[in-house]
Amino acid sequence: MTKRNCIVAQSGGPTTAINASLAGVIAGVLESNCFDTCYGSLNGITGVWNNSFINLTEKASEAGFMDKLKLSPAMYLGSCRHKLPNYEADPDIYKTIFSRFDEMNIKAFFYIGGNDSMDTVLKLSEYAKEIGYDISIIGVPKTIDNDLCITDHTPGFGSAAKYIATSMLEIAHDTTIYPVKSVTIVEIMGRDAGWLTASAALARNSYNTSPDLIYLPETNFDEDQFIRDVKLKLEEKDNLVIAVSEGIHDKEGNYITATEAAADTFGHAQLSGAGKALEMMVSEKIGVKVRSVEVNILQRCAAHLLSKTDIDESFEQGRHGVKLASQNITGSMVCIERVSNAPYTVAYTHANIKNIANEAKSIPREWINEAGNDVTKELIDYIYPLIQGEYTVEYKKGLPVYAEVPHLR
Amino acid sequence: MTKRNCIVAQSGGPTTAINASLAGVIAGVLESNCFDTCYGSLNGITGVWNNSFINLTEKASEAGFMDKLKLSPAMYLGSCRHKLPNYEADPDIYKTIFSRFDEMNIKAFFYIGGNDSMDTVLKLSEYAKEIGYDISIIGVPKTIDNDLCITDHTPGFGSAAKYIATSMLEIAHDTTIYPVKSVTIVEIMGRDAGWLTASAALARNSYNTSPDLIYLPETNFDEDQFIRDVKLKLEEKDNLVIAVSEGIHDKEGNYITATEAAADTFGHAQLSGAGKALEMMVSEKIGVKVRSVEVNILQRCAAHLLSKTDIDESFEQGRHGVKLASQNITGSMVCIERVSNAPYTVAYTHANIKNIANEAKSIPREWINEAGNDVTKELIDYIYPLIQGEYTVEYKKGLPVYAEVPHLR
Repeated sequence: MTKRNCIVAQSGGPTTAINASLAGVIAGVLESNCFDTCYGSLNGITGVWNNSFINLTEKASEAGFMDKLKLSPAMYLGSCRHKLPNYEADPDIYKTIFSRFDEMNIKAFFYIGGNDSMDTVLKLSEYAKEIGYDISIIGVPKTIDNDLCITDHTPGFGSAAKYIATSMLEIAHDTTIYPVKSVTIVEIMGRDAGWLTASAALARNSYNTSPDLIYLPETNFDEDQFIRDVKLKLEEKDNLVIAVSEGIHDKEGNYITATEAAADTFGHAQLSGAGKALEMMVSEKIGVKVRSVEVNILQRCAAHLLSKTDIDESFEQGRHGVKLASQNITGSMVCIERVSNAPYTVAYTHANIKNIANEAKSIPREWINEAGNDVTKELIDYIYPLIQGEYTVEYKKGLPVYAEVPHLR
Repeated sequence: MTKRNCIVAQSGGPTTAINASLAGVIAGVLESNCFDTCYGSLNGITGVWNNSFINLTEKASEAGFMDKLKLSPAMYLGSCRHKLPNYEADPDIYKTIFSRFDEMNIKAFFYIGGNDSMDTVLKLSEYAKEIGYDISIIGVPKTIDNDLCITDHTPGFGSAAKYIATSMLEIAHDTTIYPVKSVTIVEIMGRDAGWLTASAALARNSYNTSPDLIYLPETNFDEDQFIRDVKLKLEEKDNLVIAVSEGIHDKEGNYITATEAAADTFGHAQLSGAGKALEMMVSEKIGVKVRSVEVNILQRCAAHLLSKTDIDESFEQGRHGVKLASQNITGSMVCIERVSNAPYTVAYTHANIKNIANEAKSIPREWINEAGNDVTKELIDYIYPLIQGEYTVEYKKGLPVYAEVPHLR
């Protein structure tokens, strides 16, 4: 009998939950009777034509590997940023991919990634249908940006949100020690969607009212209004902490930041410095002590601080992907549906990739206050369950123990 | 019988261990029979003349307060940056302080702080001797910079070092995902001493060789040498991570900082630090993918990731301060002596403040490699025991529970 194998790969930017989804796919394959060997393609889809694979079924039998993998940051299999051409325009790469699939008896391909990766899922599934190749092409979502459509939220977002809210609380403690007026601006990732920046609001508690102002890319940023906002808040309290998305822009759509001319493969402008720009505004127009903090890649790789809810859901979405493949479903992404908020319960579903790829989900305007400088209770209630629970990472010799990455050597 | 009370205060920049030392002082007072009430002076020494105190003996009786305090970031009592004048030049402020001490029956004053704070300990103890006022003035050290003399290391350094080493390991995972040449520069605090930057070296393990280069303020930074170093390392591996102190300088002593030619949207010139400067050098001279990350205040306030060794020692140093006061010792700072490195054991001692205040301890040159771009095994062995062990912070509703700070409201 012909072998039925499968491939899993990871793509796009790293999160602390993308290896939990990988562990979920591997666990799903091991549980199911549908597949023989689960291969990992190194560096996303490029591993397929580079013939760069590892045998994950074998790897999973190593003692402790799966547990470590589940809690390890970034991509165990490495990543890529490769946009496939349309197959009508350039069929060669598709022929290469599918002849490899055929040669390896691949009956399912799982792609764990964000928006751009779902474009690959769409194109591969359409090509397979076109040539009549029997394979399940399944997308498993991940992105700290939480900007994928249809699914309630994305793996990786909850842990990054927990890291942001925790760091915000710690920054509030840190910035309040001197009895002088001060402003601390914290720049958080999110080009087009403000979900992660909004999660800073969860740092508020019985004694902490920071972040005092929140600026998101979903509304237009106005410097004069910003200065008025800050002055007003400084009348109420001494030490302000302000959360700002890297992607804030004025009403003409210009980023409030230094933008580098170079664009990446997908045409995104490379951003840096929204926090710095706001720091300069406060310095020049108000003149109080001011500092900006760019949380940078720490917010997406700090696996020592994970949301248990996020990691468990990420794992389950990987498993669910295998279940879909075992039902011969293709061209779909695993989705999560929030069944109820209190108690928080979810269901794992799927949706046609056509409705997801190359679309983005922003924060609804009604979840942002009218002035555009804070979020509403509805948004906080939406994020709240996603940061609940902790995983205790194992420490050895004072440092967390993560899965040894093949490509780190 | 006259009451014998004492005051404790916190000063300088925050660490995650300075509240552990405060808890240690309070615990020491509660244990001893020498003092009635332990007052906390708000915002360092300024609380004494502003008559701004809280009763810590009372506070300590609140259920759970001491445990929470021990693991809370920044300063529970708030801080100040106030340098006392010489008492010969300006005796008024000293008269105010000591009349308050007299009025409150203060027989001991504990000042938890760094280098500048020890200057206050020195001046108060000299003034007390001058006027014949019977009081113990005791310094309890803290600084993430680890730059105090005589004592083996300082409270707060171990936890910050653990945070840096952990983040470095996570950044190594994060930066290695794409099979393209890349350089990630991580800027770490430390203007004159490179201890904290050096602790990045502890991230190296069986599979991770990053940080690949380390630049410290103890040696002169040379741009040409730096570019040669990076090019050489890029021949060995694809993804470099470089640790750099904020205080690196050229041989004339000028700090290596960047003024971005490209101004932001509003035409402000952007002045950035060492990390950004090195990023621009790599970008211009080598042209590979490059990014800089400034860890900023996160490295000194991330109390969700603590070194148990550091917190326990910080607590004990607070307790030891009270023991010194009970022996009528004054004008001294609590010190820690490393009795042995394997097994790691320490003794708590003290030293005359005159030999500590206004002095700074740098990394010995022989603990830095000859090329000035890495540290030696001796330095790693010195830091290693200080990052061992973890505290599990209590989480509620998804976030760490810290001591409610009076001045955060």
